Amino acid sequence: MNVIIMAGGAGTRFWPVSRSYYPKQFLKIIGSHPLVEDAFLRIAPLAEARKVYIIVHEAHRELTKEIFKKGEVRVITEPLGRNTAPCIGLGLVHIMEEYGDGPVVVLPADHYIGDVETFQETIRRAVALVEKGDIATIGIVPTRPETGYGYIKGGQPLPGEVEAFQVEAFVEKPSLDVARQFLSGGKYYWNTGIFVFRAQTMMEEMKRCLPEIHEGLKYLRDSFGKDDFEERLREVYQKITPISIDYGVMERTTANVFVIPGQFPWSDVGSWQSVFEMRSREQDKEGNLIDGHALVLDCKKTFVQSLSGRLVGCIGLEDILIVDAPDALLVCHRCSSQDVRRCVDIIKEKGLEDLI
Amino acid sequence: MNVIIMAGGAGTRFWPVSRSYYPKQFLKIIGSHPLVEDAFLRIAPLAEARKVYIIVHEAHRELTKEIFKKGEVRVITEPLGRNTAPCIGLGLVHIMEEYGDGPVVVLPADHYIGDVETFQETIRRAVALVEKGDIATIGIVPTRPETGYGYIKGGQPLPGEVEAFQVEAFVEKPSLDVARQFLSGGKYYWNTGIFVFRAQTMMEEMKRCLPEIHEGLKYLRDSFGKDDFEERLREVYQKITPISIDYGVMERTTANVFVIPGQFPWSDVGSWQSVFEMRSREQDKEGNLIDGHALVLDCKKTFVQSLSGRLVGCIGLEDILIVDAPDALLVCHRCSSQDVRRCVDIIKEKGLEDLI
Repeated sequence: MNVIIMAGGAGTRFWPVSRSYYPKQFLKIIGSHPLVEDAFLRIAPLAEARKVYIIVHEAHRELTKEIFKKGEVRVITEPLGRNTAPCIGLGLVHIMEEYGDGPVVVLPADHYIGDVETFQETIRRAVALVEKGDIATIGIVPTRPETGYGYIKGGQPLPGEVEAFQVEAFVEKPSLDVARQFLSGGKYYWNTGIFVFRAQTMMEEMKRCLPEIHEGLKYLRDSFGKDDFEERLREVYQKITPISIDYGVMERTTANVFVIPGQFPWSDVGSWQSVFEMRSREQDKEGNLIDGHALVLDCKKTFVQSLSGRLVGCIGLEDILIVDAPDALLVCHRCSSQDVRRCVDIIKEKGLEDLI
Repeated sequence: MNVIIMAGGAGTRFWPVSRSYYPKQFLKIIGSHPLVEDAFLRIAPLAEARKVYIIVHEAHRELTKEIFKKGEVRVITEPLGRNTAPCIGLGLVHIMEEYGDGPVVVLPADHYIGDVETFQETIRRAVALVEKGDIATIGIVPTRPETGYGYIKGGQPLPGEVEAFQVEAFVEKPSLDVARQFLSGGKYYWNTGIFVFRAQTMMEEMKRCLPEIHEGLKYLRDSFGKDDFEERLREVYQKITPISIDYGVMERTTANVFVIPGQFPWSDVGSWQSVFEMRSREQDKEGNLIDGHALVLDCKKTFVQSLSGRLVGCIGLEDILIVDAPDALLVCHRCSSQDVRRCVDIIKEKGLEDLI
């Protein structure tokens, strides 16, 4: 079994902690490990370390190697971010050149999974189901009308013992009304971005659905293990159009795509707000969640991350998020934490590169 | 004419900018000068600089001398803060030993006055009225039912051209209901803490109302200009009980005390909220007031003081105050800005002396 851990994201919604030189997946946002390390540790019992490929931006090569210095995991770098389809393609080049065909599990590096055993069992089932050329994806049974996630619509159940459904559609983030219908309808699952397939299956689907990318991958395979590989990689990445695996392959493929409902707590850890919700047990009796050196007076449901070592005095606040980094400060209504990305966009427009 | 500028306050409600080593009256909270310098500049046209006594805690001697390095003003230090009655007494010791009797104007160092000419005219009138041994105080005609100020109740009008009233009572900070009655009744004025009297008058009233303090002042006068003055000063200050001039003298005196209505904009600059209100013209069209390096997204009536040089990102906030000092951060609902003092008390209790 081969694993591709996609760790190339920017994580801008976790500004000012997540930075271009140190993005979200390298931070200990939940728990005591960087998210990317947790992603590895969860899958490690199922796969040999040397068959785990962690794909990162080249700027994060050393950072990643430092985290995984003890293991044999493979750190693969991308010269540019080109979304998930090229990332998976690059992983496949390595897997196919090194091991030929075989089952591949694709995992995002920056998500939270609450019940590791159930997760592993779900992956095992998925791997068993894709041998004949199908593509499996893991969907989470929704527990609330979440508008921040993409959904997968399940159709006919698959015959056999494992609960799985034909995928009827991949659905973009819905409005609240639509999300409520999805929740009550019972056929929709949260799209986790976890995919399982045989290497050969996906390479063929890329040839059919994304010929430009497939051409690039073929060009890369021709120089695999040779001196000019990195040069070709840069050349290919500069040329190809960014596209996600969902758009690029899943919505166009003629292969059989099915969804396996995952019965484990899951979050894409998409914003400070989602971290606040996940850590509800750590909140004090007024609902405040405090990390670091803070003094909280008459506050409710306020989330303080004091990472600069400075004292943060909070008085009379409700539903406020404070993230105090050494060189920048964020003060945000908790319900606006999705807009942190907009804030980062503006900082970028202003040319304040040091702050992003 | 002699002037006593009382600059011994702690200004804890302006934490984390106001610090024990650099309290409010030395900060440029309103305008381009430290408040204590503004207090001097307002009265300077009426008094010779050498007759202006600025009374500060001894820890602030050099800070004060630096601000007034060009002038001849006298910087007098107290070894301890003992409230306003001993402070005025110490000023009187200097004035009487150096100039004998004469009119004295007592001014707080940390207030705001909007119309300097009217202020000066009011002081001139007060000085003319106290020649025969009366005590004058300046009261401001209330423009709102303010609960953060003390009030003066005016009674019978004084005969003569200057508008002035016998003082019937000094009233503590009222409840909102009472403050509303004061506002509609027309007889109540905000107590500015500005007093005018002849030096001899106040010294006699201290003898009558505060014999312990008067004894101390006499003991000090005996060594005035001698080597042991500072030693005696420390001895006296350690012994006497702190008391305000309002409680200690004004409410007990048998002298004639009257209030002159001051027709100038005034504030005690009592909190960040009062600064926000005073600077309403500088607010943007959403009512935000930003000093320093901040990025404001979907915010209303938010007040940011970025004094650390760090970027402050603000998203989705309403009525929030952010004061970002190099070693501490305050995030506070604007309506809670009076509670900053409580926050400082807690910091003190925790023994975090570096932060106060």
